[in-house]
Amino acid sequence: MKDCRVTFYPQNKSVIVERDTSLLEAVLRASITIQNLCGGDGICGRCKMIVKKGEITGEISGKLTREEVKRGVVLACMTNVGSDLVIEIPEETLAREKIKADKDADRFISFEETLFIKQYQPSPLTVKLYLELDNPSLANNTADHERLCEAICKKLDFFCSMQMGLKIMKKVPEILRKNNYCVTVTLGLRKDVGEIMNVEGGNTEGRNFMVIVDMGTSTIVTHLVDSNTLETIDAKACFNSQGIYGREVTRRMISAEKRGDQELQKLLTEDINELIRTLARTNQVNLKDITAVVCAGNSAMGHFLLGLPTNNIRRYPYVATSVEPPPLRAAEVGIQINPRGLLYSLPGISAWVGSDITAGILATGINEKKEISLFVDIGTNGEIVIGNRDWIVAASASAGPALEGAGVACGMRAETGAIEKVYIENGEISFDTIGDKPPKGICGSGIIDIVSVLLKMKYINRSGNFIENRSDVITTIKGVKSYTLPERKHNRNKKPLYITESDIENVITAKAAIYSAMKILLKRLDLDFSDIQNFYIAGAFGNYINIENAISIGLIPNIQLEKIEFVGNTSIRGAKIVAFYQEAFQKIAEIRHITTYYDLMGANDYVEEFKKALFLPHTDIEQFTLTV
Amino acid sequence: MKDCRVTFYPQNKSVIVERDTSLLEAVLRASITIQNLCGGDGICGRCKMIVKKGEITGEISGKLTREEVKRGVVLACMTNVGSDLVIEIPEETLAREKIKADKDADRFISFEETLFIKQYQPSPLTVKLYLELDNPSLANNTADHERLCEAICKKLDFFCSMQMGLKIMKKVPEILRKNNYCVTVTLGLRKDVGEIMNVEGGNTEGRNFMVIVDMGTSTIVTHLVDSNTLETIDAKACFNSQGIYGREVTRRMISAEKRGDQELQKLLTEDINELIRTLARTNQVNLKDITAVVCAGNSAMGHFLLGLPTNNIRRYPYVATSVEPPPLRAAEVGIQINPRGLLYSLPGISAWVGSDITAGILATGINEKKEISLFVDIGTNGEIVIGNRDWIVAASASAGPALEGAGVACGMRAETGAIEKVYIENGEISFDTIGDKPPKGICGSGIIDIVSVLLKMKYINRSGNFIENRSDVITTIKGVKSYTLPERKHNRNKKPLYITESDIENVITAKAAIYSAMKILLKRLDLDFSDIQNFYIAGAFGNYINIENAISIGLIPNIQLEKIEFVGNTSIRGAKIVAFYQEAFQKIAEIRHITTYYDLMGANDYVEEFKKALFLPHTDIEQFTLTV
Repeated sequence: MKDCRVTFYPQNKSVIVERDTSLLEAVLRASITIQNLCGGDGICGRCKMIVKKGEITGEISGKLTREEVKRGVVLACMTNVGSDLVIEIPEETLAREKIKADKDADRFISFEETLFIKQYQPSPLTVKLYLELDNPSLANNTADHERLCEAICKKLDFFCSMQMGLKIMKKVPEILRKNNYCVTVTLGLRKDVGEIMNVEGGNTEGRNFMVIVDMGTSTIVTHLVDSNTLETIDAKACFNSQGIYGREVTRRMISAEKRGDQELQKLLTEDINELIRTLARTNQVNLKDITAVVCAGNSAMGHFLLGLPTNNIRRYPYVATSVEPPPLRAAEVGIQINPRGLLYSLPGISAWVGSDITAGILATGINEKKEISLFVDIGTNGEIVIGNRDWIVAASASAGPALEGAGVACGMRAETGAIEKVYIENGEISFDTIGDKPPKGICGSGIIDIVSVLLKMKYINRSGNFIENRSDVITTIKGVKSYTLPERKHNRNKKPLYITESDIENVITAKAAIYSAMKILLKRLDLDFSDIQNFYIAGAFGNYINIENAISIGLIPNIQLEKIEFVGNTSIRGAKIVAFYQEAFQKIAEIRHITTYYDLMGANDYVEEFKKALFLPHTDIEQFTLTV
Repeated sequence: MKDCRVTFYPQNKSVIVERDTSLLEAVLRASITIQNLCGGDGICGRCKMIVKKGEITGEISGKLTREEVKRGVVLACMTNVGSDLVIEIPEETLAREKIKADKDADRFISFEETLFIKQYQPSPLTVKLYLELDNPSLANNTADHERLCEAICKKLDFFCSMQMGLKIMKKVPEILRKNNYCVTVTLGLRKDVGEIMNVEGGNTEGRNFMVIVDMGTSTIVTHLVDSNTLETIDAKACFNSQGIYGREVTRRMISAEKRGDQELQKLLTEDINELIRTLARTNQVNLKDITAVVCAGNSAMGHFLLGLPTNNIRRYPYVATSVEPPPLRAAEVGIQINPRGLLYSLPGISAWVGSDITAGILATGINEKKEISLFVDIGTNGEIVIGNRDWIVAASASAGPALEGAGVACGMRAETGAIEKVYIENGEISFDTIGDKPPKGICGSGIIDIVSVLLKMKYINRSGNFIENRSDVITTIKGVKSYTLPERKHNRNKKPLYITESDIENVITAKAAIYSAMKILLKRLDLDFSDIQNFYIAGAFGNYINIENAISIGLIPNIQLEKIEFVGNTSIRGAKIVAFYQEAFQKIAEIRHITTYYDLMGANDYVEEFKKALFLPHTDIEQFTLTV
């Protein structure tokens, strides 16, 4: 096979690849980060590049205009290298500044709503204790190490088996004597085992932080929390860089098998490190004072984080390598906090029921309630849980990222400038943005609203197609029918924001996958929506989801509004509970014990139910008529 | 300061040292191992070298003959470098093959005598378990890691928190599938925490070994034990290479402060590694099947092993860095067994009551008995313990290595060819050697016998001096009065074996230090030897100590013989109990709780008592008259 040199401008980076390698692969190897939301499926149309010199092969994408094709524009993911190439990457194709503040943060600054606050004393995973030890004397010449351990047990008021690494132990005598026996120890605590992670002179109790991570398939969310006050200081999020290996985790697992698990691990830990660095810098926190990272996510993401083999997750009979990995040092997987800082991965349940589910159950307390609850986490995988304190069943539906604001032409995450509410005002479509800033894109809640509003305004029909006679508001953008949102006054951002027919199709597919999964699961349990007492909706929607609009498009059924609660990012909330309360370990053990997985792929009526849901709201319209 | 080059022959090794550096230091830096039993005190006279060229400074040793001085012979420890030097090292100065079999091994092949065997089921520190796991199916798709842990808990019939390193976890899926789910796991168990140290295909249960180490100040003893049968397979011992930095631990601690703790650690771990390699090679054991090393020794040795600072041990108020270090990986301190193999240091009690004492109490069961026992461990430090199940007091007396066969002209360890018994037969002095082999030297028990016999034959007086009128048997060797043992027939080893007046002085000093320590300790407890119900004598004497002779020289008092038990190397025995029985951890915790240290150095009547004991047997002869 012939090797070709591909040179990218304006970066002026070259790579040698085999002929017929895709241009996406080549740009990847050149370590240039581009926008590529669909993961190489030719869907998002964002990986545009201009071929300046050389031969290419591959399809011409329908996402390109004739004019673009003439100028040599190609989609990198659909183009193969045919010879030495010179490629220009347009500005718009390059990844934007990845890290953004997350609206979720505001919601969870105070951590008041959980049953843990009411029932238990805080007992964080890592604590700093300031100790004033007795000076040794002939009558009290206990060894330094034991003196320290005894003082800790006394201060904590409980005895636990205390571990200490050799490196620290070697330094202890000097640290004690230099600081007149007044030191601060950093402790990692888990069940009945404690670890002395650090010993430093003086009182540094006040500076102890943790980072909580939701490792979503499309989005990584991190919260910086204060271990002393349990307060959330700040939050940052970014799209998951692993997206270049596929939108869905299955595609990424195939890549991991080909390239080794390290490649996927590295992308993830680099995202997390970048978020942590930004959180630390922005909030004047020293990385060494971040003493633990607590992560939740689906099982595949959990495996990627630790570099564990994923090959049996996607193969019959779907076996994970580990769903309850022990606590590790963060440094072991390349996460940069305190060198002895802990990495705690929340336990999941099985290969397809990850710790995002465990976290969701923990955060909503489904497992504490006598009555039956339904929990749905709307993400790239739609996770569904039904159960009570005696039994829990979980299922997972592949929804795609449309409801997260990804895989949609003008989609974006729920961050400043995102359109989060769309509504009808005086017969006109209007919208609000996050932070009341000029609109930059549309986030998940806005997308649900737009589809609902377009349906109400009869701009689209129940199949999601634009109605022919509404050509006053419908334009064709790049060959696809689209609705363009009205321009706002003082909008310096001149780019028009629109939603296309194929965006709407993605939304319908996503909501149909989730809705039909709920239906099938209820059917198997011989239950109906009316049996559900608490209906919890989780997801990365920002502050807000318009429940009525969600019902009107058929994402959720029409049940009494007071039963419905929007609970936000429950991965983060559940992980926070684990970070703050030792009792959470026992709760998770109980949850794992009563939870079973129902495999929708094995349900032969799932496809039928899915097809019925491919309408707005549904073929069976009865369930979605609002009766408020 | 001027640098000088010192070249050693026949090794042809050169080192650059500052002028006035001692020749011992120079030979050390050249990594040439020489005989040097006294640790550089100019006492043993074994570090002889011949100056071929160049200038030296320093004293002329009385250990050298006039003829030797003329030939340019010097003692390396008493000679300083004055210019570039060329030095010849005589054959006899070089260290002999260091590693020897140990007679102790035979004694403890069967492990029958302890209360543990009677009361508890064996539960070794490390076990190998062969597991035939269920193949996964849709109905049973537990993750690999949890499948393994569940199978282990089931087989062990108890639940414990199970840890597993990331490296192993990554390999588990492949190992399971390649071996049709039939694997052997190696487990480290301690209290309620288990660690999966290794997972390998097939059934290797049969091959699991541990090494038990007694880290003596003068001698390192290692036993290779089978974790399945609890049998001792073999034993090897060597003199402690740290001897070059001092005979006593205090001198070594001073060296460690000057040179850093690594240097002392390295000498010790290299000794242990060499012993382990020899044990493995001789017994066809693969190093990877040695899964734990269990060590006991005094606190200073314990610190040297881990590289912990010792500087506060020897300074008021005598504080150790750690007397209860957590289990570590052997690799962390440079001990070469299975890469994930454990290193367990037995807990000691304080800076001057090490784990050799804890082991001795555990092995003799003093802490289980209602009646009062006395335990004396005769080594370079004479360790004394008095107590019962309610209270225990320990003390330590600096005896020197004479009773271990070191620091004595013809002394050697209890190994093949050592004179271990000396007795009077038909009015003549006769002896037996270990293994009935030609005599090569005299070990500890033989030295006690000779002094006793010389006293009985009236060759020496009660001060240990040769009696003038016995010039028929007394010769002057190298200017010192000596008694030469009769030659044996068929002795191919032509070198005469003798004991000098200064050897006898060393023996008297050693026995006086130990005896007076016992006296003072009893006095403080308001007890007398007659209150002692069990009198345990421990030490590296080989198989044997003649109790009557020990009494006749005043090493031990004349108490009823049936109360006296020779218990051999209790460091090894105690460490074996810990290696084989989890219950030992609880016992040690109990022992630590009831044991206090009595500091003899603070006793103002100790010197007086010591002086009274500097006779054979004692100034107060009543206590030593045999009344059998």
